[in-house]
Amino acid sequence: MLDADIIKKAQSAKEASGILYNCTTAKKNSLLKAVNARLRSETSAILKANKKDLKNASKIGLQKVLLDRLTLNEQRITQMMDGVKDVAKLPDPVGNVIEKIQRPNGLLIEKMRVPLGAVGIIYEARPNVTIDASVLCLKSGNAVLLRGGSEALHTNKKLVEIIKMALQDVNLPTGCVEFIDTTDRKAVQLMLKQEKYLDVIIPRGSQKLISFIQQNSAVPVIAHGEGNCHIYVDSSANLANAEEIIFNAKVQRPSVCNAAEKLLVHEKVAEIFLPRVVQRLRQAGVEIRGDQKTRTIIKDTVHAQDADWFREYLDLIIAVKVVKNLDEAIWHINHYGSHHSDAIVTGNKTNGERFLREIDSAAVYVNASTRFTDGFEFGLGAEIGISTQKLHARGPMGLVELTSTKFVVHGKGQIRK
Amino acid sequence: MLDADIIKKAQSAKEASGILYNCTTAKKNSLLKAVNARLRSETSAILKANKKDLKNASKIGLQKVLLDRLTLNEQRITQMMDGVKDVAKLPDPVGNVIEKIQRPNGLLIEKMRVPLGAVGIIYEARPNVTIDASVLCLKSGNAVLLRGGSEALHTNKKLVEIIKMALQDVNLPTGCVEFIDTTDRKAVQLMLKQEKYLDVIIPRGSQKLISFIQQNSAVPVIAHGEGNCHIYVDSSANLANAEEIIFNAKVQRPSVCNAAEKLLVHEKVAEIFLPRVVQRLRQAGVEIRGDQKTRTIIKDTVHAQDADWFREYLDLIIAVKVVKNLDEAIWHINHYGSHHSDAIVTGNKTNGERFLREIDSAAVYVNASTRFTDGFEFGLGAEIGISTQKLHARGPMGLVELTSTKFVVHGKGQIRK
Repeated sequence: MLDADIIKKAQSAKEASGILYNCTTAKKNSLLKAVNARLRSETSAILKANKKDLKNASKIGLQKVLLDRLTLNEQRITQMMDGVKDVAKLPDPVGNVIEKIQRPNGLLIEKMRVPLGAVGIIYEARPNVTIDASVLCLKSGNAVLLRGGSEALHTNKKLVEIIKMALQDVNLPTGCVEFIDTTDRKAVQLMLKQEKYLDVIIPRGSQKLISFIQQNSAVPVIAHGEGNCHIYVDSSANLANAEEIIFNAKVQRPSVCNAAEKLLVHEKVAEIFLPRVVQRLRQAGVEIRGDQKTRTIIKDTVHAQDADWFREYLDLIIAVKVVKNLDEAIWHINHYGSHHSDAIVTGNKTNGERFLREIDSAAVYVNASTRFTDGFEFGLGAEIGISTQKLHARGPMGLVELTSTKFVVHGKGQIRK
Repeated sequence: MLDADIIKKAQSAKEASGILYNCTTAKKNSLLKAVNARLRSETSAILKANKKDLKNASKIGLQKVLLDRLTLNEQRITQMMDGVKDVAKLPDPVGNVIEKIQRPNGLLIEKMRVPLGAVGIIYEARPNVTIDASVLCLKSGNAVLLRGGSEALHTNKKLVEIIKMALQDVNLPTGCVEFIDTTDRKAVQLMLKQEKYLDVIIPRGSQKLISFIQQNSAVPVIAHGEGNCHIYVDSSANLANAEEIIFNAKVQRPSVCNAAEKLLVHEKVAEIFLPRVVQRLRQAGVEIRGDQKTRTIIKDTVHAQDADWFREYLDLIIAVKVVKNLDEAIWHINHYGSHHSDAIVTGNKTNGERFLREIDSAAVYVNASTRFTDGFEFGLGAEIGISTQKLHARGPMGLVELTSTKFVVHGKGQIRK
């Protein structure tokens, strides 16, 4: 029963993707406009559905942070609509020729961007993802099969209904957006086996969820993994800059994947630098965990364990280590890091270049906060996630990363010798 | 025991990949030169190892075609060496900046090509893949873990020994190329679980092997799937051209994935065109299977079953269908095809453009043979496989497709507001 339902929805998305594949940009933008018109006219129905979810959530005693993420109001719906408008304004990557090869035999070979096809999105609590992810997929010509968190079930169902209304408003098949409306966890497992219909699965959620999906999916996965991000302060660093960067990267929004979790400091500047930065961090409520050398400089510091160097806290905690030199910093980051975002603060150009070259992370920085790893901050205009894997897309993913390519070959009767 | 061995080798490749990550192009080319020097000086040892494999193969009664693929001789070793020389001449993609983004806040963001890391290759009979695939990986800065077919075990072992000698000759870790030297099938399953150490697995072999790997791998896979390739002859086609293209695509090398398996003909030209092309194909030993309309034109034709339209024959067989128009051809190809390579022969520009746009395959052709889908023919200089999936790489894969990217961000103390 569940099996049949999920197969049917995956199949329906795949079929609809054939129509979207050849949609003009104007048509796709008119769809996005229709989504916004429906979001406006259905606002009270959305809020009603959201109330049901909130009621259930408070019954089961959902954490306050999660309750806040789940809550919609008129302002948040307006923000969603602004997001849809922004995506409508973005250039459509589909049909772009990104490479031309003229062969000696006269063949002209073009590499052209095309939609991926049908995209599976598996996500947790926040209902705005239902709209954000759907419009990004639709604008890039992809159909989508959504699987949201159980807490937001009623809200998500309503939002998908609205997109389906908009699809009908512009005469596109409602299968362009399908939604798995069961809270049965088996549904995820079944989705992972729909490789016949789904071209990719993008999971957004906890590391545990993402690992499970990577381990079990027959559909290719683009994983948004965790961010154990480092700031290394070199001996030649402008220490005032370094302080601002660390403070920003740790404190501005500690719960996100591009926040700094580790501070490495060159031994030559540790004694001057650590006291002042630690004081400022502690004033902002940050817990400091230090290696042995840090603890001789900052006496009242918890001892960082080996496990600390691997951890993503997503909280007001930072582990601090004093290193001998750039080599040790690079080794430490490549060994313990999660290859998300790492920064060096330095006044030495050669050291900066070595760091940028030798650190193998999705984003490497010289003299800037790791908090910039983000689709909007990178100028992509929107973001469906931040890939921490190396295939297909790495780092912030926008519309272009939701496309594949094909080779388009123009001949005049050529045959192979 | 087997587990420990495979984990150790995957780990060793991962560690070595850290060294290769920062190798200069000159260093990697000197390694390739050393590989060739060792191939020359060890030729007799290679042939001796190959004799062992051939002896075992004839004992178990290996098919003649497979025996031929397994056989090495001096000429074939020279060909291998020529291949290595060609790869040494190719431009190194690592370090190339393929995008620059200047942000209003002064950040300069560059997208730079970097190696993938450690690549797993699972392949069947042909021992030359051991050298070909290894040098492509090494030139693009990747370490490699190889798992070859059991028939070629002794030859492959010797070839890997040679690469390891060459690695030592230029002071690189021998872990850059690791080889699983057991014929135990469980080894493949274990390889698929090394996501901690392997960044990608590229399988080359039967559809069955590839499906098994896609279903079971926790490591991202780039699949080289089957080619159920079509030629559609439009009503406006130059029929002499059409005949040459079909003959070439079907007969020149029927055992490869870019050979044509299906012929679709517009009903307006079927009666004139089919008799002549069928006669020519039959003279070359091709079996014709036809739909009902084809069988009224070519009387002595086997009836093509529904399963035929999905099949990749890899043999001198072709299934022929008469279609009403371009729409039916496009629908048929997208529905029954394997999205590898498909061609239209037409004199009508609009129809050609529609076909190129609406057919969702790795390579789409107007007025040329599908046999051109190949890394060398596309000008990539070499080929590690032909991807039929949509993520990361689609179509022929060269050195560039063996790289990932990272964002390199140059700041002056910027923090996020």
